[in-house]
Amino acid sequence: MTPAVAFDLYGTLLDFTSLRERIYLLTGNASPFIETWRAKQLQYAFTSTLMGRYVDFETLTALALDFAAAQHRADLSAQDRAALVDAWSELPAYPDVVPALAELQKRGTRLAVLSNGTPGAIARAVEYAGIARYFEALLSVDAVQAYKPRPEVYHLAVERFALPRERISFVSSNGWDATGAAEFGFTVYWCNRGGVPTETFGQPPAHVVPSLAALPAD
Amino acid sequence: MTPAVAFDLYGTLLDFTSLRERIYLLTGNASPFIETWRAKQLQYAFTSTLMGRYVDFETLTALALDFAAAQHRADLSAQDRAALVDAWSELPAYPDVVPALAELQKRGTRLAVLSNGTPGAIARAVEYAGIARYFEALLSVDAVQAYKPRPEVYHLAVERFALPRERISFVSSNGWDATGAAEFGFTVYWCNRGGVPTETFGQPPAHVVPSLAALPAD
Repeated sequence: MTPAVAFDLYGTLLDFTSLRERIYLLTGNASPFIETWRAKQLQYAFTSTLMGRYVDFETLTALALDFAAAQHRADLSAQDRAALVDAWSELPAYPDVVPALAELQKRGTRLAVLSNGTPGAIARAVEYAGIARYFEALLSVDAVQAYKPRPEVYHLAVERFALPRERISFVSSNGWDATGAAEFGFTVYWCNRGGVPTETFGQPPAHVVPSLAALPAD
Repeated sequence: MTPAVAFDLYGTLLDFTSLRERIYLLTGNASPFIETWRAKQLQYAFTSTLMGRYVDFETLTALALDFAAAQHRADLSAQDRAALVDAWSELPAYPDVVPALAELQKRGTRLAVLSNGTPGAIARAVEYAGIARYFEALLSVDAVQAYKPRPEVYHLAVERFALPRERISFVSSNGWDATGAAEFGFTVYWCNRGGVPTETFGQPPAHVVPSLAALPAD
């Protein structure tokens, strides 16, 4: 393992599919709704950066929720909407996360989060999930006003760790984030818990792991 | 109507959902396969531009097809794969396209295509669909090595028409393309044939039309 590791947050450390139950109670629908919401959230992050108009991730998450509600004909009150957006700061860590972070920390590995989220949302989320103590830094795209996979986002970890990029590992469950980070020059671990197909475009990640349990031993 | 109009190609003038039948014969699956293919094709266009690694649209279409085949467990031969990628140059125009283009041309409106496709693929596609005669220019993102909604792509139409951007109309059925073009400053017509929800992020298009039939009279 490299001396420092940066982790993606949503979908990698924290399980946003846990929103399923809450969404089902509000809309009578769960998986297709979450899929639309997530896909739109990412599309807005990509296209806002391409258009050169940065809007923070909480706002994009709320706008993507409105789109998903229209698509799935769900009538959400302003209160439901706010609660669902806030719920991104109340996600559980995947079961493999705490043991892996604790072991890496024990071995002296420096750890950080590098996320599309706003600084406030990241801080609340790691606090809620009980993993705040493992990180020396919570890095948000907000500092560069652009979203992953733009290189300047990944560069935030280089600046923070003050290490050459190849001596920093980057861990993500999002295929496009893993290839973007590999393109940037990090040593990438793609955590493919769901067994989804490998991205066919972009620099392949150096490692593919089924869970974070494989990290400390590497 | 403005003195010049630029049209998006795939999904706006040409119906790529017509690939459904061909895909069904090869894979026993149609709509979910096309949805994965199209979503991945666009994701690769967005992320390749964000990563700063331009790869042409035909190549991305082939790579996205490989992903869709893996996702839907379809075993495509090299020949099937090549035929499916080529099929993007053999798409029918929507029924409202030829009457609208003919009428606009009759009224002296200058017309162009502005597409993510390669110059070769665009030329073959408009030829196949029988609409080549209406356009004074076929503009490809290839000239700027970046994909929509990057502003330099839309700027290709400004250069070509030599008109201020607000005197150029831009027509797209893709919501993100319509908002990107509106952000750029074109007079945008979002052609929402499918009655999909309005994008909630970005500059709203000036006009929403159910088909291109509404254009010439405007």
